[in-house]
Amino acid sequence: MPQTMDTKKKLREICRQAARVFYMKSYDGASMQDIAQAVGLTKAGLYHHVGSKDRLLFEIMNYGMDLLDETVLQKVKDIQDPREKLRQTIIGHIQLIVQTWDYETTVILHENRSLKAPLRKKINVRKREYIRYLEGLISKVQEQAGTQPLIAPRLATFILLGIVNWLYQWYRPDGPIKLDELAETYADFFFRGLL
Amino acid sequence: MPQTMDTKKKLREICRQAARVFYMKSYDGASMQDIAQAVGLTKAGLYHHVGSKDRLLFEIMNYGMDLLDETVLQKVKDIQDPREKLRQTIIGHIQLIVQTWDYETTVILHENRSLKAPLRKKINVRKREYIRYLEGLISKVQEQAGTQPLIAPRLATFILLGIVNWLYQWYRPDGPIKLDELAETYADFFFRGLL
Repeated sequence: MPQTMDTKKKLREICRQAARVFYMKSYDGASMQDIAQAVGLTKAGLYHHVGSKDRLLFEIMNYGMDLLDETVLQKVKDIQDPREKLRQTIIGHIQLIVQTWDYETTVILHENRSLKAPLRKKINVRKREYIRYLEGLISKVQEQAGTQPLIAPRLATFILLGIVNWLYQWYRPDGPIKLDELAETYADFFFRGLL
Repeated sequence: MPQTMDTKKKLREICRQAARVFYMKSYDGASMQDIAQAVGLTKAGLYHHVGSKDRLLFEIMNYGMDLLDETVLQKVKDIQDPREKLRQTIIGHIQLIVQTWDYETTVILHENRSLKAPLRKKINVRKREYIRYLEGLISKVQEQAGTQPLIAPRLATFILLGIVNWLYQWYRPDGPIKLDELAETYADFFFRGLL
């Protein structure tokens, strides 16, 4: 299906609603009928938009990676200083996780094993791209510091992903810890560990 | 059912096999018949041992928390120095995650939302106990250091859990990074961030 602005907008709306349904009922527990109902489409209409349940899960994950690109990576792409660029990437990633916490994030981080091989590979390509981006940036930050690196950039990348992605398990934006404070504290902690 | 040594041993064996099946097929996707087959029991025999599918998921998580107690917390309980005690706890937790990575760990970290409320509460009590233990220990390490704390013990606890629990998503013990090296590097990173 060619993605005009309208079909893209519709697809994103379906993704958001479907992510909520998968979150409530789990991927295996939710039927296409449940999702059609949540989006206000007939089951045939839903299939017309997304093709299959597997494809729908893929589209949700793809949408999540689009959000990372659009709301985080695009914003930092002109920052020249590696340390500032990494810092803003961390803060942006945290904001994204927290703002979508109960829907897309959970589905993306949780249901990747539910996706069948060919589509999972496609998503993994995008995830690996982000991992390589972080790894390269961490490596530049270490070079810039001019000291002996204390940890391999790849390990530091997985530490960072662990710290940030784990937030969806416990952090609630309406709780006692403010988002800005959380993001700054996390970024500071990471830089102390790194350098 | 009173837990004699034999029924406990049998239950643990069922938990290990069931965790593998839930890992392969997901909790919602796996039937009690699938699990009975994997354990070499009739479906009636399986129900006799575990009561229900929900109860079985609870027993797997409970078993995981038992392993944490038995293989990590018991071993460090006589260490007096807070910093060394925390270090050994981190290393022990990492070893546990890595050694059970594709079964219990995934099920425990992944399927907690699948558990119905009363049993989920019971598991959450045990999880919270561990969180409080880490928080108290981190707080003592900060006191011992005698400097102004750089991060609240509770936030540092969730950073630690994120770092360690995320390992199941990517680390493979037969890959290029040795377990001992990983555990030391992670512990060092955490202490640099903390103090």
